Amino acid sequence: MPYTYQSLKHSDPHTLRAAFRSGRYRSHTAGLGQGLLQANLAILPQEQALDFMRFCHRNPKPCPLTGVSDTGNPMMFTLGRDIDIRSDVPAYNIYRNGQLDTEITDIFDLWNEDLVAFALGCSFTFEHAIQKAGIPLWHIDNDKTVPMFRSNIETVPAGPFGGAMVVSMRSIPEDRLNEVTEISRRFPLAHGAPIHVGDPAEIGIADISQPDWGDPAPVGAGEVPVFWACGVTPQVAIEAARLPLCITHKPGHMLITDIPEDAESPVLSSSQEKI
Amino acid sequence: MPYTYQSLKHSDPHTLRAAFRSGRYRSHTAGLGQGLLQANLAILPQEQALDFMRFCHRNPKPCPLTGVSDTGNPMMFTLGRDIDIRSDVPAYNIYRNGQLDTEITDIFDLWNEDLVAFALGCSFTFEHAIQKAGIPLWHIDNDKTVPMFRSNIETVPAGPFGGAMVVSMRSIPEDRLNEVTEISRRFPLAHGAPIHVGDPAEIGIADISQPDWGDPAPVGAGEVPVFWACGVTPQVAIEAARLPLCITHKPGHMLITDIPEDAESPVLSSSQEKI
Repeated sequence: MPYTYQSLKHSDPHTLRAAFRSGRYRSHTAGLGQGLLQANLAILPQEQALDFMRFCHRNPKPCPLTGVSDTGNPMMFTLGRDIDIRSDVPAYNIYRNGQLDTEITDIFDLWNEDLVAFALGCSFTFEHAIQKAGIPLWHIDNDKTVPMFRSNIETVPAGPFGGAMVVSMRSIPEDRLNEVTEISRRFPLAHGAPIHVGDPAEIGIADISQPDWGDPAPVGAGEVPVFWACGVTPQVAIEAARLPLCITHKPGHMLITDIPEDAESPVLSSSQEKI
Repeated sequence: MPYTYQSLKHSDPHTLRAAFRSGRYRSHTAGLGQGLLQANLAILPQEQALDFMRFCHRNPKPCPLTGVSDTGNPMMFTLGRDIDIRSDVPAYNIYRNGQLDTEITDIFDLWNEDLVAFALGCSFTFEHAIQKAGIPLWHIDNDKTVPMFRSNIETVPAGPFGGAMVVSMRSIPEDRLNEVTEISRRFPLAHGAPIHVGDPAEIGIADISQPDWGDPAPVGAGEVPVFWACGVTPQVAIEAARLPLCITHKPGHMLITDIPEDAESPVLSSSQEKI
C-alpha cells in the first residue's frame, strides 16, 4: 500500500528514506522532514566530477554543495547514517547527452563504479525560516511552484559547466525586506541572501509575469520582487554540458538528510568519530 | 632593495602581491592586507585533486576551501584580478613523498599542466575580529606563534587524506567566551566557531603546556582554553598521503586575496560578469 503525505508528515528521516526506498512514496518532499536539510541531487561520471565540484565552489549561491560521495560508493555517509543514493529519493530523472531520457524510482541498474553523487542545498530551508517569522510566501500559500527566470548574471565557469544563473522570485512586503534578507543570509547552504532586489530588468528579466520555469506569481501593492540564486542553475549547466549520462532527482522530490537546517557544517557528526 | 613590513603595512593587495612576486619581500603576512581574506595554499597533482577537494568539503572547519584553480592554470581568478600562484606568496615549501624537500620563493620551474592549486581560509580573519572587539590574544601581544595540538578528533577521510584534526588554542576570559564564540562563528571561511572549550583532555591533549606546533601560551586566572580547528590539519593529511609532489606556502607566509574578510562568498564579483 502506498504511503500518504499525511502518514509521513511527522516521520524521522530514517523512516522517510525507508518509505522512498520501498517505492511506496513517489511524491514531492515539500513539508516532510521539517527542520532537516533537503538537497538537490546530481550524479555524474568521475571524469566530470572535479570540474563540477569547481563549478559549485565558484558559484556557491546557486550551487551550495552539501555533500559528495566517494567515486562508486552509493552511501552518502556524511549526510545521514543510511543514505543509499540509488534508492533514497522518491524519483529520479535520467539525462543522456543533455536530454531528459526517462524518469524512474531507483537507479540500481544505472549505478556503477565510475559515478560520483553530489547533494546541493535547496530553498526549502530558508523558506521555512521566512514562514516561521510570519512572512507569507504566495507560491506556498497558493500551492504553486515558485517562478524562476534565466537572468543575465553569468556564472563563473569551470570546465564544461557555465552559463546564465537561474533565479527564483518571491514577492516580499517592503517593510519586511531587511528581515527576509537577514534570515536568508543565515543559510548559506540554501542559497543565502538574495542576489537582487527590485527592478527585474536590471538582471535581464523582461517580463516578470512570464517565468521560464514554475508558475507566475503576483507582486502586490507595497511588495517588492526579491530574487534568489536558484538550484535550477546547475541543472541547466549540466544539460548544456551534454554529458553522456547524468542522473538528478525529479524536481521537488528531494533527498532528505539527517543534517539540521541550521547546522554550521553539512557533515554528520558521527562520520567524524573520536579516535 | 627589499621591501620592509612598515612600507607595505597599508598597501593594497595588488601592490602586496607585486612585492612578493618581485622576490623583494620574503617575510610573513600577518598584519598585511588588513580586512582582506588571507589563505593557506596547497598545490597537488590533478590525480589527487578530487579526493583533496572532497576532504576539504567533508572537513570544512579545519579545511575551509576558499578557491581552486583550473588544472594547469596558475591564475586564481576567483580570488583576485592578477593572482599568479607561481609567484604571489612570499615563500613556498616543496614536499616530495611527504617529506619537506626545499623552501623557495617562486615555483615557475615546478608548475606544470597537471597541477591544481587550492586556497584555504586561515585564522588571521577571526583573530582580527576578536581583537577589534577589544579581546586580547596572548600569542599576538607577545609575538609568538599560536599553540597547536594533535587532537583525538578524527577527520572524515577522503581517498588518501585523513587522520587526526589539529587544533589551535587561545586562552579567553570566561566572561567573553560567548562573544568570542559568536564572533568566530561569523567566519566559516576562517575555521568558524570553536571545536572545543575547556578541559584539553576531552579532546586528547595530555599537557596544554606542550604544544605539538607553535609556542606554549599560558591560561591565566579567570580564563578558559578555547580550541579551534586548525589549518595545519590538511598539511598533516597531505604529508601522511606521501604524494610524489605537493607545494604549500611557508607557514605564516600566506596568499593575500582581493576578497573582503566578511564576504558572503569567496568569489571575486568581477569573475561573475553580467552577460
